[in-house]
Amino acid sequence: VSLSALEAIPLAGLPEVDAGADLGQLIAAAEPGLRHGDVVCVAQKIVSKAEGRRRDLCDVVPGAEAQALSARTGKDPRVVQLILGESARVIRAEPGVLIVETHGGLVCANAGIDLSNVPGADTALLLPEDPDASARRLRGCLRTLCGVTAAVVVTDSFGRPWRLGQSDVAIGCAGIHPLEDWRGRRDRDGRELAAAMPAVADQIAAAADLARDKVAGLPVVILRGLERLVMKDDGPGAAALRRPPTDDLFR
Amino acid sequence: VSLSALEAIPLAGLPEVDAGADLGQLIAAAEPGLRHGDVVCVAQKIVSKAEGRRRDLCDVVPGAEAQALSARTGKDPRVVQLILGESARVIRAEPGVLIVETHGGLVCANAGIDLSNVPGADTALLLPEDPDASARRLRGCLRTLCGVTAAVVVTDSFGRPWRLGQSDVAIGCAGIHPLEDWRGRRDRDGRELAAAMPAVADQIAAAADLARDKVAGLPVVILRGLERLVMKDDGPGAAALRRPPTDDLFR
Repeated sequence: VSLSALEAIPLAGLPEVDAGADLGQLIAAAEPGLRHGDVVCVAQKIVSKAEGRRRDLCDVVPGAEAQALSARTGKDPRVVQLILGESARVIRAEPGVLIVETHGGLVCANAGIDLSNVPGADTALLLPEDPDASARRLRGCLRTLCGVTAAVVVTDSFGRPWRLGQSDVAIGCAGIHPLEDWRGRRDRDGRELAAAMPAVADQIAAAADLARDKVAGLPVVILRGLERLVMKDDGPGAAALRRPPTDDLFR
Repeated sequence: VSLSALEAIPLAGLPEVDAGADLGQLIAAAEPGLRHGDVVCVAQKIVSKAEGRRRDLCDVVPGAEAQALSARTGKDPRVVQLILGESARVIRAEPGVLIVETHGGLVCANAGIDLSNVPGADTALLLPEDPDASARRLRGCLRTLCGVTAAVVVTDSFGRPWRLGQSDVAIGCAGIHPLEDWRGRRDRDGRELAAAMPAVADQIAAAADLARDKVAGLPVVILRGLERLVMKDDGPGAAALRRPPTDDLFR
């Protein structure tokens, strides 16, 4: 016996995204059948591209701190300079590893900056400046263009301490509370729920990534079956997922 | 335009699981339509129950180390004693927080022990002794009973440093490699993949949890559409997700 399923549907037919692209229009054109309660998961990469966050490494002049961190980590000093520009502080710097806290409060490797090593065109792609604002804007566009109340989650792949590999997390969201609150509820054994606040936005990002063929480059995945989580308001955004530094034992 | 979807289907009709229960038979009876390539996600709770991992707190005598850690964390000294029995070492102990590395190499709060506070019957539920072995056994049963090659993932909810809330991860698996290896592959921009080793078993656990209604207590979720990941062999298990301590900056 099975209940109603959750579906994750990768969106085909999305064109290459360039700076200035209107993601709402591109997604609405690729998926005319968007429904109320859908959760539209968008890979950070295309949000950053649309928002003009590409940087040419030739234009970057590394300062003294970047030079020192480059020596320590073995990373390109120009890339380190870009990372420092996006960071409030360095959490760990070791050979091959540079983990920072971004101005937006994300703790991640390399401030989330991706590199392109196409010969002769070394570029870096920064995270969106405010991924929650990006999600809100895109949600507003989809509401206007498709006439539906959907949620939007902007996803990126983060490594984790203690566990190998990467998992996608929500760096921005709108129309969904990133934490579901079950505190005080009990399961059918009368046991307090061990996971009282599931980080549903992060779990949504992980589910979307599973459905995606990375090489084919399918940056948008629609999750259907999570209507219970989709709100009329934009909500607090993925900012609500940030553990306050005072409450964090690993920073 | 949408491609083939990933589906997460919670399984209804599973009875209460007691010590000694045959999970394979229970799941095969509840889902006679199990298919080749399905991924059967099973919450740790019912695996632990079936394996007799419930402990009565009345039977636990806390030693000196448990008493000291109880004073520091504010946790019940009997619970701390159980946690220490499951742990290779303590990673952090602060008021309200006890993070350990289990004998099995998992870094998590309280050694993954859940508590039941039913008045007069305080019990604790330990993690399965070897969740990869649990997954392999269950997979073998499902192969025999249903005649299909499915994968099994044993899931639990873990907190994360830096981010609030919990996300489900894979503590055991069989029939799937927990890490997909895209190292050296490039996306259609020619960019090296930023997430070269997606922790697919953890992402599977997260997707399964999203599909589950916690209060209804639906501990089994079937993921369909991940045939590409399901192998004939049992594979290395979730043990392959453990970051070696020498490679870990946060332990």
